[in-house]
Amino acid sequence: MTVIATSSSLGLAAKLSRLLSRELLVAEEKVFPDGEKYLRIPKRLEGDVLLVHSLHQPQDERFVQLLLAVDAAKGAGASRVIVVVPYFAYARQDKRFLEGEPVSVGALLKAVEAAGADALAVVDIHKPSSLDEWLRIPHFNVLPVGELAGYFRGKLRDPVVLAPDKGALHRAQLAAQVLGAEYDYLEKSRDRVTGEVKIAPKSVDVDGRDVLFIDDIISTGGTLVAAAKEVLALGAKRVYAACTHALLVSGALDKLYAAGVEEVVATDTVPSPVSRVSVAEPIAEVVRKLLR
Amino acid sequence: MTVIATSSSLGLAAKLSRLLSRELLVAEEKVFPDGEKYLRIPKRLEGDVLLVHSLHQPQDERFVQLLLAVDAAKGAGASRVIVVVPYFAYARQDKRFLEGEPVSVGALLKAVEAAGADALAVVDIHKPSSLDEWLRIPHFNVLPVGELAGYFRGKLRDPVVLAPDKGALHRAQLAAQVLGAEYDYLEKSRDRVTGEVKIAPKSVDVDGRDVLFIDDIISTGGTLVAAAKEVLALGAKRVYAACTHALLVSGALDKLYAAGVEEVVATDTVPSPVSRVSVAEPIAEVVRKLLR
Repeated sequence: MTVIATSSSLGLAAKLSRLLSRELLVAEEKVFPDGEKYLRIPKRLEGDVLLVHSLHQPQDERFVQLLLAVDAAKGAGASRVIVVVPYFAYARQDKRFLEGEPVSVGALLKAVEAAGADALAVVDIHKPSSLDEWLRIPHFNVLPVGELAGYFRGKLRDPVVLAPDKGALHRAQLAAQVLGAEYDYLEKSRDRVTGEVKIAPKSVDVDGRDVLFIDDIISTGGTLVAAAKEVLALGAKRVYAACTHALLVSGALDKLYAAGVEEVVATDTVPSPVSRVSVAEPIAEVVRKLLR
Repeated sequence: MTVIATSSSLGLAAKLSRLLSRELLVAEEKVFPDGEKYLRIPKRLEGDVLLVHSLHQPQDERFVQLLLAVDAAKGAGASRVIVVVPYFAYARQDKRFLEGEPVSVGALLKAVEAAGADALAVVDIHKPSSLDEWLRIPHFNVLPVGELAGYFRGKLRDPVVLAPDKGALHRAQLAAQVLGAEYDYLEKSRDRVTGEVKIAPKSVDVDGRDVLFIDDIISTGGTLVAAAKEVLALGAKRVYAACTHALLVSGALDKLYAAGVEEVVATDTVPSPVSRVSVAEPIAEVVRKLLR
């Protein structure tokens, strides 16, 4: 098996090639004068191929590159193209919230399959059942909560792990297991007099304790900023935030630190200044299973 | 049938809706803070739908929007989504010129089909057999050479229509029929002494005559600039250029005028300052056939 890297995930692909003891091959990339992308795999391929390509910004350009890379790998002789998309963009538009909307993640997943992918592994996709719903090829969702929580082992005093909403509670539960901590989720409530919307932990008391927020994505960080302020007002000692995919748009990191967050930690699915935890090992595990 | 327009081809879609006497529906579009595109069809659909969406710059963003639009139209109740892509990007990468390259146009065509398109009509795609090769759904290639040549009817004196290479000769032949003109193609030759590459008409004499160049795409205009200079040096009276898709990157239009070209004319597949000829009527013809 050969590991193929694009500029999207070069570091992560290199780690994977070392963990799996397989050759790393870097795709040639260029852009034509009219803006069309070009990509070439500079070697004849044999056997299985692991193509690693994440879909962070500019996500549409990277998505087209992904289709080209899958097609190129098939054309270069790969018997199976196992596609690893550490961050799969458009995953939050996973249903028609309003009539007339697309299921964006479905359209993109189907395109990757149509391009010739033989298996797809993603990391912490917003709704894992999207994979079952839209793919016929084998697929895997890697949940790196153990790795993220591990980063905080021994660092927190009397910790509480908080999920931003009930739907994300499983992440908080997993992280709490690793840390031997309590866990809870944030609940929104409206003040009957002022009409103000408040977010606060559902039932756990954070007074005098360290709080670790955990979520799949930090984008603008808006919810997290409000939540950090709230738990600090409720007496929390120190506030930390962990996420899988650090999109960090519109100065999110500055806003989080300004709101009193001690440290923000993310994985390397999206390269960022806070990508201190690698998903290489859990992805390698999935690949080893797949090759067995 | 409803005609659905996106911001990519609003003018052309409006013309089509008038020619076909069908309702025009404009998709809602927005961009999320992290750069992901959103699109919504603001009405429940019934029966067949004609979705018009071109793939000019930024082509990758427009390509993702196309997949979302097809999915949204299907989800909104369309019984058949007939997709019109006036300019289909990535069509020149239509084979593996070098080992390890993708067939980019194939990867993109397959994605459009996988998104749920029931038929695809394109205008003057670089190699029409790409459609047969990569699509299973019904497909149509509209060749607007008659419309482009028609623009020049009565304007040229003793005209010669020239294709930039032998592969594009059919376009010159069609335009020459419309104009009652001679036609030929350009041939490259290398001076045996100086090594200089020259381009000149294969056999026709341009001295004292008007020359009309015709091609599918003008991108940087490099070949055309050299060709215009050459035929002017050979005594051509006036030089005109016509193309289907005016990409016009890197100041192509300025360079063409500076090289002595009198006028550049293109269709409205790609909105441009020289899009003086509409492909609405030939597309409408194809759609009428399809609905019959």
